[in-house]
Amino acid sequence: MTRIIMNGCYGRMGRMITQICDADETVQIVAGVDAFGAACNTDYPVYKSLEEVKEEADAIIDFSNASGTDKLLDYCVAKQIPCALCTTGLSEEQLAHVKEASTKVAILRSANMSLGVNLLIKLLKEAAPILAEAGFDVEIVEKHHNQKLDAPSGTAIALADAVNEGAGNIYEYVYDRSQVRKKREKKELGISAVRGGTIVGDHDVLFAGEDEVITFSHRAYSRALFGKGAVAAAKFLAGKGTGLYSMADVIG
Amino acid sequence: MTRIIMNGCYGRMGRMITQICDADETVQIVAGVDAFGAACNTDYPVYKSLEEVKEEADAIIDFSNASGTDKLLDYCVAKQIPCALCTTGLSEEQLAHVKEASTKVAILRSANMSLGVNLLIKLLKEAAPILAEAGFDVEIVEKHHNQKLDAPSGTAIALADAVNEGAGNIYEYVYDRSQVRKKREKKELGISAVRGGTIVGDHDVLFAGEDEVITFSHRAYSRALFGKGAVAAAKFLAGKGTGLYSMADVIG
Amino acid sequence: MTRIIMNGCYGRMGRMITQICDADETVQIVAGVDAFGAACNTDYPVYKSLEEVKEEADAIIDFSNASGTDKLLDYCVAKQIPCALCTTGLSEEQLAHVKEASTKVAILRSANMSLGVNLLIKLLKEAAPILAEAGFDVEIVEKHHNQKLDAPSGTAIALADAVNEGAGNIYEYVYDRSQVRKKREKKELGISAVRGGTIVGDHDVLFAGEDEVITFSHRAYSRALFGKGAVAAAKFLAGKGTGLYSMADVIG
Amino acid sequence: MTRIIMNGCYGRMGRMITQICDADETVQIVAGVDAFGAACNTDYPVYKSLEEVKEEADAIIDFSNASGTDKLLDYCVAKQIPCALCTTGLSEEQLAHVKEASTKVAILRSANMSLGVNLLIKLLKEAAPILAEAGFDVEIVEKHHNQKLDAPSGTAIALADAVNEGAGNIYEYVYDRSQVRKKREKKELGISAVRGGTIVGDHDVLFAGEDEVITFSHRAYSRALFGKGAVAAAKFLAGKGTGLYSMADVIG
Repeated sequence: MTRIIMNGCYGRMGRMITQICDADETVQIVAGVDAFGAACNTDYPVYKSLEEVKEEADAIIDFSNASGTDKLLDYCVAKQIPCALCTTGLSEEQLAHVKEASTKVAILRSANMSLGVNLLIKLLKEAAPILAEAGFDVEIVEKHHNQKLDAPSGTAIALADAVNEGAGNIYEYVYDRSQVRKKREKKELGISAVRGGTIVGDHDVLFAGEDEVITFSHRAYSRALFGKGAVAAAKFLAGKGTGLYSMADVIG
Repeated sequence: MTRIIMNGCYGRMGRMITQICDADETVQIVAGVDAFGAACNTDYPVYKSLEEVKEEADAIIDFSNASGTDKLLDYCVAKQIPCALCTTGLSEEQLAHVKEASTKVAILRSANMSLGVNLLIKLLKEAAPILAEAGFDVEIVEKHHNQKLDAPSGTAIALADAVNEGAGNIYEYVYDRSQVRKKREKKELGISAVRGGTIVGDHDVLFAGEDEVITFSHRAYSRALFGKGAVAAAKFLAGKGTGLYSMADVIG
Repeated sequence: MTRIIMNGCYGRMGRMITQICDADETVQIVAGVDAFGAACNTDYPVYKSLEEVKEEADAIIDFSNASGTDKLLDYCVAKQIPCALCTTGLSEEQLAHVKEASTKVAILRSANMSLGVNLLIKLLKEAAPILAEAGFDVEIVEKHHNQKLDAPSGTAIALADAVNEGAGNIYEYVYDRSQVRKKREKKELGISAVRGGTIVGDHDVLFAGEDEVITFSHRAYSRALFGKGAVAAAKFLAGKGTGLYSMADVIG
Repeated sequence: MTRIIMNGCYGRMGRMITQICDADETVQIVAGVDAFGAACNTDYPVYKSLEEVKEEADAIIDFSNASGTDKLLDYCVAKQIPCALCTTGLSEEQLAHVKEASTKVAILRSANMSLGVNLLIKLLKEAAPILAEAGFDVEIVEKHHNQKLDAPSGTAIALADAVNEGAGNIYEYVYDRSQVRKKREKKELGISAVRGGTIVGDHDVLFAGEDEVITFSHRAYSRALFGKGAVAAAKFLAGKGTGLYSMADVIG
């Protein structure tokens, strides 16, 4: 049984993870923390701050706000509780803090919490050098809902980075081809962002060769996916030694 | 039996159309014209210029070069032979010339010669107003080979124009979302261009709504497609009165 | 303001429609009916049977059980309240009853309540004869979650019927090609059913011709889609005269 | 420079491979063999049977007919020339003969000669156990032209076998779900065959989980693909010792 502290328990992802843990006998949320959210009915005690938590835990899941990340990291180090850090929008300083904290306690951080995307990242690292050498061109198309602020998505960048790392960092990312009139260059890795409706998140990685195209696709149907990934991460972290982990490690 | 003059008969598309006509008993190439190409073995006489052609014909198929378009148009008017004008890259002046010539003889011109794409254009004009009013966002993704110079493709623009025309010209086309950090606006119609390998031409028109996405896709597997469309256009033009036609008219 | 009686208000779809109506100022559920479901907290009175409802209404939405359909139809005729009949699995006798009742009150029934699928059905009727005559082969692939009992889906059959009706009923549906070793015949319309995970419902209608494939795709991301379609149907039905309607009429 | 004997040089694939070798400076067809085909213009001598070939070679590419496979194998063993065996439809006895011959000379045989498909096979063996354990359901959809006799394709079976082998042979293949009314079982691996137009060969391997679907797709645009794979295989085989190889070995 993995005992979890849910940081940001009243937020959309916090409530979703509460439901996921209710339905999973191998995990239990022992305490929640939320400074802002409207109170919901929970089976576990909820505190205004981490410092007030009295319960013992094996891992923290954090889906809160970047403004609290520094305090969170300090708490994890002090209490020696591993943390699945799912809050996005961290500053360069905070990313450095994450790295430093991970030398003292287990921290997991990923651009995308789904098992599927992280498996894809792993496979792309292997496939990319073979396909690149065989002359395939790489392009990524991602699709998200019309409320998303950033483009391309962090996940698309993570997929491109996996390809690029696998192939020996030979690529330059291209986001727009409408302003020039010229043939595609070999070193280009085009990333296109489609926005519309309520699309949760589609990612296609295309390898286009002579007379054949291989496509690796991931489609998310619900944000519950990311909650399940966070719970899997918490189980993985329980009892882990120091280190900076990613979902790739959870997949094994 | 439709009798055809093939203008540009030694080019890649000219040779392909020769094969298509060989296999189709209802059409016959009675003469070819080519000023430049390396001579091929043909069953029909080939001339250096249109003026030399002695055979009578019901239609001209033109897959040659924009530099000869003005002479071609004058020839069609003088001889009263309809023309399927498949040469691209015409100037504004030439497009005006096409329009003027079409008041004196039947001329057909389309961004894409495939029946499939043109059927799609027709359906999009009908579907767009309904889907736009129902709040669907429209996005287009096109994919072509790595030798293509322009982006997005003329066909993608034609598809976007069909949607826009159908919906009352409410859209602004967007080609890049990586430079801004903001939500998609309702009036945006995103067009993404993917380039790689030898992809002949894929076009996806997405309508993304709440919890549902409708996609209209066209995939070309070979350029022979465009040759067949040109032959169908020639058959359609035989005996037609003056007017500026498009492949939409061929579909009927 | 359209006043709605929600029949089956405690079921999964009933609760979803309650939420949809809460968020839509142009509709109001004035009463709910549920004989079986576990009581939920609602803003409207809930009765054990239709007969007990005291409120006046402009339309009934029915997502209940085929066992109650006959009583429901009699009630609609007697009270002259139009009905969006979303319950599936009706017997031949019940379908005859629906038809007969529709001569006395407005009834709407569809294999799929989403606007998107019904728009597709409408477009397919137009596109099918053109594509069939042009020699395109038609195939349908549908994908649903691993709990679905029937295959192919009712929606896939409705899409096939639309194609078949449009093309002059020339097709025979084929569900399995693994048992014979022979070329595809022109009259075949293959329907493939994929089952896995929690896929809400994907439908692809392919028209495969020479060197080109046109695909019409619909993807559902959530069942909320079907609830929204039912509410749109109720609005459409308010004040409508007798007749048997479908979602195609709602699209207009 | 790899010297090749092209067995079946006048057939469709033989002529295609001749063109491919013409354009590739690192290979040369030194002799062709064809007992039946209509003579084409070739730069190399063509013989009625293998026995007549006088030229020395590093590998044989065979795209001929199963009726000649036994003689071909004996020839390869006797002359110690490795062979890329691309002829399909071998009998059980012939497959045994292949195996036996491969103990004396290098033989390569694959269900699909494209690098892309074979890379996919390799990746699927790795991904399958992880995805199967994570509860993903596996389904395969293949699409081919309307002249194909068999369904599902040999390549679809090879992809399914790769998944099954990777996951510990836990699957039963299912080709039709229309005859039963029941939920999908975990051990099912559905394979759907779509037939239409001139589709060269599409293969999708879907892993459908909770709220996410991962798809590995391969699309062939031209049969030239398979010719190029055969030439790559010939280069790989030149100088190789005894053994039964597949395209997976060529990928390395």
